[in-house]
Amino acid sequence: MQCMAAWEVANTMRTAERWGMFELALEGPSGGNPFAGVVLGAQFAYRNRVLYADGFYDGEGTYHVRFMPDTVGEWRYVTQSNCPALDGQEGTFACVEAAPGNHGPVRVHNTYHFAYEDGIPFLPIGTTCYAWVHQGNTLEEQTLETLRRSPFNKLRMCVFPKHYTYNENEPLFYPFERTEAGGWDFNRFNPAFFRHLERRLGQLLELGVEADLILFHPYDRWGFSNMGAEADDRYLRYVVARFSVYRNVWWSLANEYDLMTGKTMGDWDRFFRIIQEHDPHGHLRSVHNCHQFYDHARPWVTHCSIQHSDLGRTSEWRKMYRKPVVVDECCYEGNIEENWGNIPAQELVHRFWLGTVGGGYVGHGETYRHPEDVLWWSKGGVLHGQSPERIAFLRDILAQGPAGGLDPLIDTWREKAVGRAGAYYLFYFGVHQPAEHTFDLPEGSRYRVEVIDTWGMTVTPLEETFEGRFKVPLPGRPYCAVRLRRAE
Amino acid sequence: MQCMAAWEVANTMRTAERWGMFELALEGPSGGNPFAGVVLGAQFAYRNRVLYADGFYDGEGTYHVRFMPDTVGEWRYVTQSNCPALDGQEGTFACVEAAPGNHGPVRVHNTYHFAYEDGIPFLPIGTTCYAWVHQGNTLEEQTLETLRRSPFNKLRMCVFPKHYTYNENEPLFYPFERTEAGGWDFNRFNPAFFRHLERRLGQLLELGVEADLILFHPYDRWGFSNMGAEADDRYLRYVVARFSVYRNVWWSLANEYDLMTGKTMGDWDRFFRIIQEHDPHGHLRSVHNCHQFYDHARPWVTHCSIQHSDLGRTSEWRKMYRKPVVVDECCYEGNIEENWGNIPAQELVHRFWLGTVGGGYVGHGETYRHPEDVLWWSKGGVLHGQSPERIAFLRDILAQGPAGGLDPLIDTWREKAVGRAGAYYLFYFGVHQPAEHTFDLPEGSRYRVEVIDTWGMTVTPLEETFEGRFKVPLPGRPYCAVRLRRAE
Repeated sequence: MQCMAAWEVANTMRTAERWGMFELALEGPSGGNPFAGVVLGAQFAYRNRVLYADGFYDGEGTYHVRFMPDTVGEWRYVTQSNCPALDGQEGTFACVEAAPGNHGPVRVHNTYHFAYEDGIPFLPIGTTCYAWVHQGNTLEEQTLETLRRSPFNKLRMCVFPKHYTYNENEPLFYPFERTEAGGWDFNRFNPAFFRHLERRLGQLLELGVEADLILFHPYDRWGFSNMGAEADDRYLRYVVARFSVYRNVWWSLANEYDLMTGKTMGDWDRFFRIIQEHDPHGHLRSVHNCHQFYDHARPWVTHCSIQHSDLGRTSEWRKMYRKPVVVDECCYEGNIEENWGNIPAQELVHRFWLGTVGGGYVGHGETYRHPEDVLWWSKGGVLHGQSPERIAFLRDILAQGPAGGLDPLIDTWREKAVGRAGAYYLFYFGVHQPAEHTFDLPEGSRYRVEVIDTWGMTVTPLEETFEGRFKVPLPGRPYCAVRLRRAE
Repeated sequence: MQCMAAWEVANTMRTAERWGMFELALEGPSGGNPFAGVVLGAQFAYRNRVLYADGFYDGEGTYHVRFMPDTVGEWRYVTQSNCPALDGQEGTFACVEAAPGNHGPVRVHNTYHFAYEDGIPFLPIGTTCYAWVHQGNTLEEQTLETLRRSPFNKLRMCVFPKHYTYNENEPLFYPFERTEAGGWDFNRFNPAFFRHLERRLGQLLELGVEADLILFHPYDRWGFSNMGAEADDRYLRYVVARFSVYRNVWWSLANEYDLMTGKTMGDWDRFFRIIQEHDPHGHLRSVHNCHQFYDHARPWVTHCSIQHSDLGRTSEWRKMYRKPVVVDECCYEGNIEENWGNIPAQELVHRFWLGTVGGGYVGHGETYRHPEDVLWWSKGGVLHGQSPERIAFLRDILAQGPAGGLDPLIDTWREKAVGRAGAYYLFYFGVHQPAEHTFDLPEGSRYRVEVIDTWGMTVTPLEETFEGRFKVPLPGRPYCAVRLRRAE
């Protein structure tokens, strides 16, 4: 008989993939209101390192504590609860190597950029389907299929259902139980709602799509935007307890926080701190404005989540906040009446490139009129526009770029370029249509030169290599870029 | 024998058309330096109203005093000079009705707009040929012919020749005499230079083109941009004495005054005051910036002459200065390397409409590369671009507008419109491509509605008339406008 190491014993019993999901399921009381009355959590330890995860009640006497281990090896846990049946339960599990394609959660990398925890760069190419999880299975599955065939790797989406123009339908699930009077009991979560949302988060994870999960928003006819501070805070802790185990979750505190007049700036600060305290995994945290930016310099904000039409200011925001700048919303491709949803594909693609050459990342949305009000921006479905394939083209350019990300190198009225000094330069000329351009780079490197038509999606290399000050012919069309890469 | 009234006697002797040119020619000394030594002027009086005009030396012992009478009837004059031969010469002349097409000089009208002195609105549709009078007869005549067939009724042009990229050629005439050492004698003007320029001013007048005459500019290899204060002031007085008789002259103190580092803000203030004091006819006065606006609120500035790329700010400048806003330079249609000269026609036309819907006026220029460096923006010649016909289309829209000019009526992110409240609205949607738009106007007027494609140059009337809040289908293309005119 062979002697097994403790780790191996555990491994045969319970395992979780690195950055995967470990879940403790416990049986406990179902009487009274366990959502409000039962406190549950667990310590998770790898050697001397201890993390705390909140548990949650999932209905019918079942309690869960979830945890995303980030280190391969044996982890120990012990539960803590005010309920004796749930308290002091101990055990171990083995964290095994991540499966191929699992790179861990996305982190800020190199100040202005992102990378998965394993170091692979993450280049956010986001889109927006605010209320897609509230549309029923047929449309939701169609949205997933569209995403699968799209260039997008991040999705802005709301927890709560949406009430707004083009959004009149009721959701299939509600996050709370009804009171007898027909209102909402913010003390009782509806587990079916959250299980449905978790299923969608998991499907996004399988597609490699980060879920930029919007926790509050103002477009509401049910009362979820004005539940009061106690219910808000309990909701946040419940959401964090359930969802932080999904490595693809980003916490977006709100869409257009500044339109939620029932909440104060102090509320937003508190929400950030609650999430910081309760999320053992340190997922990305941001908040999205309508008119007025939240102060992204605050320490609990990991990156800027911005709504703005003037992408020429991207590099200014980088300097102001010294964090990654994600302009999630800069008007959507579409033809609806509202100005935030009726720019041409060409203008949206132009804004993507302006943001890129400012050292930031830009987000997509689509709002073409639809006879049944199925607009991608909110409900998902299928894409109709001409920008996604151009955004895919940009994504490929970015993916071929330097690993450290693109930082502004030249930012004058004459020229704008991002890259890595001496190695890689990406210039963008925007609406300008020069028939030639004189580059003026430090001596010491020779460059291969490619002329990029961002709308026509062509990359045309020049035969020669160049150094120092040199002139290059350009197409004399708008929306062109030039890529310079050091010739080895 | 019939008794003739004094007016009729004068009329048979000497006449000048209202807003035309009266010129006294006097013989005087030619020795020494009459430019510096001889002071000459005249009082011109209509009844009790007296105006003062400086005279000037035109070489070879000939002196002139010029005057543009603005009132029909008998005018008296008497010269004043430090030279006895030129002093105290008296006489009368008859000012007769203006010929058809002569509407007088352009004045500020209705705070933010322009009109000829006879009250006919003047809608500035300007272009730019900075150095066209320094290109020799063949090209200069071609420029005049191009202007004749163009939509433009104002031309930015320099007195001095221009030294700059694409501008290497020497002028045919120089404004000053050479010194023996080969420099310039700023004390001695070259009458041939000024006679040539006057001929061109007169030809523009015949074409109905206002000459926005640029008195200083920084692009200089001859030394005319740094003559010193005494020579600057003498030059200004000489120019005003010669040219103010041309009713189509506007005084533009400089192109890009802020690049002329040899001059102080005090110099610019003094230049304005010299022109105010010496010009009996009160021609329009402005100064054009590169980076930093001159303070257009100063009392001697009649209108804003602006270089800026963001035409969305036009209404802001109106509010700031409470004067007409002319954005003479917002980048030129072309394909040269420099960013100020390589925007597509579509972008320039878009900027014209943005400025229009901000309540201002926008200027044109063209900078397509040319094998002999004949770029319209500086040398004139012929036009190659696609914007002039669209600018002509806009001019026609403006000409059909209300006489008082277009003032901002709606200025929100949702909508921008200029016009006259309750009577006329011109909306512009810019890059947005709504498939419909809901207008929301005060009840009480019904409107005829026309959908305008500013690039396609079509005006499509709707059959119905509308009142109050109403929705109109739009083409779902960018660069559309809508005109609402009260249905009588």
